[in-house]
Amino acid sequence: MTYCVAITVNEGLVFASDSRTNAGVDQLSTYSKMFRFEDIGDRVFVLLTAGNLATSQAVVSQLRHDLKQNNEPNLRSVEHLIQAAEYVGSVSLGQQQKHQSAAAGSSIDTSATFILGGQIAGGRAKIFMIYPEGNFISATGENPYQQIGEIKYGKPILDRIVRPETSLEDAALCALVSMDSTMRSNATVGPPIEVLIYRDNALCFDRTATLTADDPYLQALTSNWEAAVNKAFTALPQYDWSGTDAGDPK
Amino acid sequence: MTYCVAITVNEGLVFASDSRTNAGVDQLSTYSKMFRFEDIGDRVFVLLTAGNLATSQAVVSQLRHDLKQNNEPNLRSVEHLIQAAEYVGSVSLGQQQKHQSAAAGSSIDTSATFILGGQIAGGRAKIFMIYPEGNFISATGENPYQQIGEIKYGKPILDRIVRPETSLEDAALCALVSMDSTMRSNATVGPPIEVLIYRDNALCFDRTATLTADDPYLQALTSNWEAAVNKAFTALPQYDWSGTDAGDPK
Repeated sequence: MTYCVAITVNEGLVFASDSRTNAGVDQLSTYSKMFRFEDIGDRVFVLLTAGNLATSQAVVSQLRHDLKQNNEPNLRSVEHLIQAAEYVGSVSLGQQQKHQSAAAGSSIDTSATFILGGQIAGGRAKIFMIYPEGNFISATGENPYQQIGEIKYGKPILDRIVRPETSLEDAALCALVSMDSTMRSNATVGPPIEVLIYRDNALCFDRTATLTADDPYLQALTSNWEAAVNKAFTALPQYDWSGTDAGDPK
Repeated sequence: MTYCVAITVNEGLVFASDSRTNAGVDQLSTYSKMFRFEDIGDRVFVLLTAGNLATSQAVVSQLRHDLKQNNEPNLRSVEHLIQAAEYVGSVSLGQQQKHQSAAAGSSIDTSATFILGGQIAGGRAKIFMIYPEGNFISATGENPYQQIGEIKYGKPILDRIVRPETSLEDAALCALVSMDSTMRSNATVGPPIEVLIYRDNALCFDRTATLTADDPYLQALTSNWEAAVNKAFTALPQYDWSGTDAGDPK
């Protein structure tokens, strides 16, 4: 399993990904799911991946190969972000189809899902979630994040915290809390956690961090959040149970 | 969709359920998913239901019918809670099989999942989750709750708060917070929220509440929790981003 999240705020973009992959419960490995494309002209891209590892590796390889060989289209040649999303979608679909017939009849799922984010000079910084079918949706002010993989455990905190005016640092912190809730509930999501901050119009990456399981900050965050949630819970108003005798059977 | 949760603590049991059902997004209805069985001797049971509404209604009907007709087994005649769980599982399987052939080939899923909780005099109060296949698992001290339906959004708060020594009132409050997170993220889970408290060895229900969407307490809880989570988030330690220039492309 995987958990990746990308957040768009007024100041820029934040990306976070876990690094655990599993093929069955007895084959756990560590792979980065965050791929950076920079030094390719007036633009930067980040790709987050979930799903079949062979497919996502093949997609990243082809994106790099197309750049190197100047095959059209490629991430350097596309004019707008939306065309980059279309291109990644079609590369993904092609790679899935390559192995689909071999996988047919087995329980192997060759599909993969991506989040593509970045900025091309003159355009706005954006994030897209690209479905296995190759189509995609973009995050907006009303829905300022996209998630792939094991998305549900970490969603409530994003809904409560992230707004367009949230700072990049707070958005990165929220991504980490969201990751913490997910790791706690799903054993197949795990560190190292990679975090990347992109500041609007910079056209290069701003800050990056890779937090391993024994990272003191990650450990402090986990225990602080646990304590803070417990404290917040204790301060909630109690329901007035007096006069609510359960005497009337339905 | 549905969200139901049952919690077992040293003081007794807590049950909570939403009341929204949907057959497609344009057919939303309100049905209680909490069924009480009491005044049947030295015992009480609560059944929470998720899944196919026709199946779960048929199961509840048959449980009541068997009680009335003194068919064997029934909820009055079983000696131990585990036999009650076995009985409910077999009734469920029977009702699903009745309609399975008619539903075959359609996209209709006749399966249903249940949580059965309660106590029989001389035994311990317990909760069981009963799978569509009729088998079941019980909640324990290490895993002091069971959920059915849309379970993921509301799981992190249960993991953080519920312990065997948690009071019944706090367990009920935690169930409500868990319900609040779920309703916020899944539009097909909704009020009225029913909550039932069973105090260990009482052999009758202690407290019950039905909270509608406009219930002042439910509204206060939602806004208080939102504010408390935001405040807790604000107090978290920030990562030290200085010296983490993202200069080295991978």
